[in-house]
Amino acid sequence: MSSLTDDAVPRDAALDGPVGMSAATDWAHHPARGARLTGGLLHDWQQRNLAESLPIALRQLKAAGNLDNVRLAVQGSPSPTLSYRGPVFMDSDIYKTLEAIGWQLALGDHNGLADFAAEVTALLERAQLPDGYLNSYFQVSGEPRYSRLSSSHEMYCAGHLIQAAVALRRGAGDNRLLAVATRLADHLVREFLGAAKGLDGHPIIETALVELYRETGNGDYLALARQFVDQRGSGLAGDSGMGRRYLQDHMPVRSSRTEVGHVVRALYLEAGIADVAAETGDRELLESSVRRWEDMLAAKTYLTGGNGSRHSDEGFGDRFELPPDRAYNETCAAIASFHWSWRLLLATGDARYADHMERVLYNGFAASVSADGRRFFYVNPLQRREDHFEKDDPGRRHEWFKCACCPPNIMRFIASLGHYLATVSEGTLYLHQFTGSRLSGADLDVEVTTGYPWSGRVDITVLSAAEGERGLAVRVPRWSAASRYALNDSPERAVVPAHGYLLLRRRWRPGDRVTVQLDMTPRWTRPDRRVDAVRGCAAVERGPLVYCFEQVDQAGGMRVDDLMTDAGEPITESVTTLDGVGQTVQVRVPASGFQREDGDAIGIPYFQWDNRDGGPMRVWMPVR
Amino acid sequence: MSSLTDDAVPRDAALDGPVGMSAATDWAHHPARGARLTGGLLHDWQQRNLAESLPIALRQLKAAGNLDNVRLAVQGSPSPTLSYRGPVFMDSDIYKTLEAIGWQLALGDHNGLADFAAEVTALLERAQLPDGYLNSYFQVSGEPRYSRLSSSHEMYCAGHLIQAAVALRRGAGDNRLLAVATRLADHLVREFLGAAKGLDGHPIIETALVELYRETGNGDYLALARQFVDQRGSGLAGDSGMGRRYLQDHMPVRSSRTEVGHVVRALYLEAGIADVAAETGDRELLESSVRRWEDMLAAKTYLTGGNGSRHSDEGFGDRFELPPDRAYNETCAAIASFHWSWRLLLATGDARYADHMERVLYNGFAASVSADGRRFFYVNPLQRREDHFEKDDPGRRHEWFKCACCPPNIMRFIASLGHYLATVSEGTLYLHQFTGSRLSGADLDVEVTTGYPWSGRVDITVLSAAEGERGLAVRVPRWSAASRYALNDSPERAVVPAHGYLLLRRRWRPGDRVTVQLDMTPRWTRPDRRVDAVRGCAAVERGPLVYCFEQVDQAGGMRVDDLMTDAGEPITESVTTLDGVGQTVQVRVPASGFQREDGDAIGIPYFQWDNRDGGPMRVWMPVR
Repeated sequence: MSSLTDDAVPRDAALDGPVGMSAATDWAHHPARGARLTGGLLHDWQQRNLAESLPIALRQLKAAGNLDNVRLAVQGSPSPTLSYRGPVFMDSDIYKTLEAIGWQLALGDHNGLADFAAEVTALLERAQLPDGYLNSYFQVSGEPRYSRLSSSHEMYCAGHLIQAAVALRRGAGDNRLLAVATRLADHLVREFLGAAKGLDGHPIIETALVELYRETGNGDYLALARQFVDQRGSGLAGDSGMGRRYLQDHMPVRSSRTEVGHVVRALYLEAGIADVAAETGDRELLESSVRRWEDMLAAKTYLTGGNGSRHSDEGFGDRFELPPDRAYNETCAAIASFHWSWRLLLATGDARYADHMERVLYNGFAASVSADGRRFFYVNPLQRREDHFEKDDPGRRHEWFKCACCPPNIMRFIASLGHYLATVSEGTLYLHQFTGSRLSGADLDVEVTTGYPWSGRVDITVLSAAEGERGLAVRVPRWSAASRYALNDSPERAVVPAHGYLLLRRRWRPGDRVTVQLDMTPRWTRPDRRVDAVRGCAAVERGPLVYCFEQVDQAGGMRVDDLMTDAGEPITESVTTLDGVGQTVQVRVPASGFQREDGDAIGIPYFQWDNRDGGPMRVWMPVR
Repeated sequence: MSSLTDDAVPRDAALDGPVGMSAATDWAHHPARGARLTGGLLHDWQQRNLAESLPIALRQLKAAGNLDNVRLAVQGSPSPTLSYRGPVFMDSDIYKTLEAIGWQLALGDHNGLADFAAEVTALLERAQLPDGYLNSYFQVSGEPRYSRLSSSHEMYCAGHLIQAAVALRRGAGDNRLLAVATRLADHLVREFLGAAKGLDGHPIIETALVELYRETGNGDYLALARQFVDQRGSGLAGDSGMGRRYLQDHMPVRSSRTEVGHVVRALYLEAGIADVAAETGDRELLESSVRRWEDMLAAKTYLTGGNGSRHSDEGFGDRFELPPDRAYNETCAAIASFHWSWRLLLATGDARYADHMERVLYNGFAASVSADGRRFFYVNPLQRREDHFEKDDPGRRHEWFKCACCPPNIMRFIASLGHYLATVSEGTLYLHQFTGSRLSGADLDVEVTTGYPWSGRVDITVLSAAEGERGLAVRVPRWSAASRYALNDSPERAVVPAHGYLLLRRRWRPGDRVTVQLDMTPRWTRPDRRVDAVRGCAAVERGPLVYCFEQVDQAGGMRVDDLMTDAGEPITESVTTLDGVGQTVQVRVPASGFQREDGDAIGIPYFQWDNRDGGPMRVWMPVR
């Protein structure tokens, strides 16, 4: 049944990332292939991910029972000494870890990652049933398959398995897990294609099937993904007890104008919608997704790029309901948002998606990992008071969680980071994210060197170029008030961006160098006046970084819970290294406390918070 | 085993309300006896409660299965056609309704209430087990008694049974349910007194046992209540899955300095703490409760007097975490808060408790009932946006709920309202709440006539007075900026309150009349600057009433979601009657919308919201 055969067209391993090259003509851009991080903050994160984070996942998958659950599935029933442990979606943590390993292996093997992947793949091969079904919870419990799709996460787990298999193939040329994944996908096609038998309460199968279609060329996978997208809104997901909006099953996606319900579900679904739209040339579908993205950015997104205003349903709130203290901003939601924006960037080439990816990456997402890479946030609020208490969010990072969706999601995302830097369109290489890297596209090979995000200077050196005129486009972030650039030894001049990019077309030669200088002056940001929860406040940003004020950095008497400032006063900055935090740029603004002591409040980038003592923190400061 | 015998001292029925006369010397005040509402808003509420609300309870107790559950308990097991329905605490809705009937019968029988009470009492007598245990869920399910007290609500139900029995005796002289209640209380004494076998996760047994002690004189009930209070904080309540703070079982009450966890539980417990402290003369215990009350008022109470900042645990938030849109402010919490403040008023005589009772009564509590008395709020937010969605709070009142704790709680509370108007201390009758009424105390009988809260004029006419000098004290609300009074035909003079009261001591004669004129000028209120969620906003108050702005009252183009105003500008008022709402005083303030249209915004009292079309509403208005 599988469309994958041994004589499948061989692929270059280590070249493609998420949303691999597809035959679709409806992408405005295509991902640049074979990008690599070579230095700087993102490279450091990737090294930390490899050295510190991934070993935790490997240990926890054993300790928390995920792998034992699969072993039980191999046996077919609980044993005298073992029983199924954890929530129904425990398998997905294994798959996310395998996906991380897939992207990581493209950068070289370390710490036995390839061996671990091979061992787990072998276990999954044994656990898979002859008809392709594979789910440790349902195989062990004996509950009927697909009998409660609203909460069973069966296709959610299948989706993560497929994405892991795709990553292992793209990253390491390893086809073994892809064979498992295609057997499972073929089973899903037989069960669901052309029928109205149910929808998984937790989307992700949609992107996964499209990625598998890209990898195998089997149109059934795309057809099934499209069907799942089109069926959403008809009540087929059933009632999880949280209502149909929670599952985005309240109205057809083509009619829906705003994000509602559980954020991670909503945003994984959007990524799938964008994938289906691009691969099928469905403009109406794409436009519905773009419309919701615009609404989300206008009324349901935090300054940090986070989404999710409520603890009670891990959900979106009403328009402009964005409390900083009660922000949920689940880490997985930041990743899902990034995945969605990436697809809209490919579909449209519009720089605003890359702008938002940057905001999410350096703020809402980046805060989810401790400076040492060993602890993770599930919830990412913009304020923590001195007497903070919330049972489901202690306000500190943890190594692992009972519902451990976030840590391995972080790992797969960081391992794939290099793939999101650049795209190609009409003979032009577009550089969207700035970090030390080697990039190729449009017959150009370039090297990027920069101290970003600490420094605003980005140097792009051409390593090789084909004959003829080629374009090199550099995104100019909207926050950069006065950007300048120079080509080789020409004098610096002001950037006049076209559609958000500095676009240079010429016959490039090896050694050509473009230097872009972005404006990193710290700045005050005021909220939309309709955001009730932060009215009368201002925040500090510098380049792509949102700042926060932690108690540990303040002079005596200056209590963060009571801080007030004058927005508009000059912000001074200083480059420094802080114990527990590492390299940073601190800012200093005039402030006073409730008792009207005057002094300076000292801020650091939001993503670096909670690496010291766990005291009060706030992003938005009341204005005097 | 019961301390109640047929030759128990006969009591005057229809005289005492909640916290009946006790022998305790540690109350600063005692409740005035036999107060009656005779006209005005509170009297209207009581009539509406009788005519419209109570019939709903009687119908729903049949329809929702509460009474059938007790019938199943009589049988001892499920029948072929019936099984237990609803949550474990379904019995408590029956008891709250019986309590409402008890207080109501003191005002006369109507609509077969006495017959209903007799019929249900007979059913409960048959359901009660020989050892006194009575709980339909546990008797039907066969689950072991007291095996999961953190969530079983067994003593919570017992507490409501006891309170119902006390009300039926005080209100109607009916001792039958009291016999059931004392058998159950005696059983609890045998099971728990002197032991450390568990604490109910949901307090209310504490106040109930003290009330039963007052009614019967049996000191074991007081001793058990005291024990439950003292044991709180030792982990005896067990883990309900929400943690120990949720159950106020995280630290001993004598050490706790702030309210945490589930609000209704916390505040019922506080009422019990105050009861135990007063009846045992335990100053340390009382002071701990006073300290937490002060902290709650300073940092964890809404302008409407409501408590509860979070949906996720129906709980208190951090200090100054008071979002208007996400306010929970459960109706039962308002009632519990009122019960607690009543006890602190009796214990201390401090007018601030009566001030707060007034705020809760006319705002946070009053909003829970529709103008027609047929629909009820469970959650009472201070803002509803146009796109409001919350699965557990549709933003509209409902007739009944799956968890129907609030409607019958509202009914028992309104039926008892007359008892909270006045107290007696040292030969002085203290008048705390202003409404058409007949009051007696300190050998004075007076009649109060007033158009309160629409008018600030309160006339108190002496009907009869014993010989000698007596005091008449009238609370002067803190919001009344310039209060005046006159005695008989004397000229009006300014009130100079002593400890919050206008105190007049003299030899009173029938026909003497005191006229007090409170300052009802509408006023702007600004929030504490540490409340992040309403920074830069102002609200309108008039007398005891908090105002709100509903979309339905605004001229075209003035969108409530976008309103801005200038706090400090003059507020005009107009007396009117609105369809669906009834009598009201509207206010009018200069405002503009997001698009800067200028005009007036029109407000009505918060408690009257959601009696028209269900559009947007807000209490706090952004200041331009």
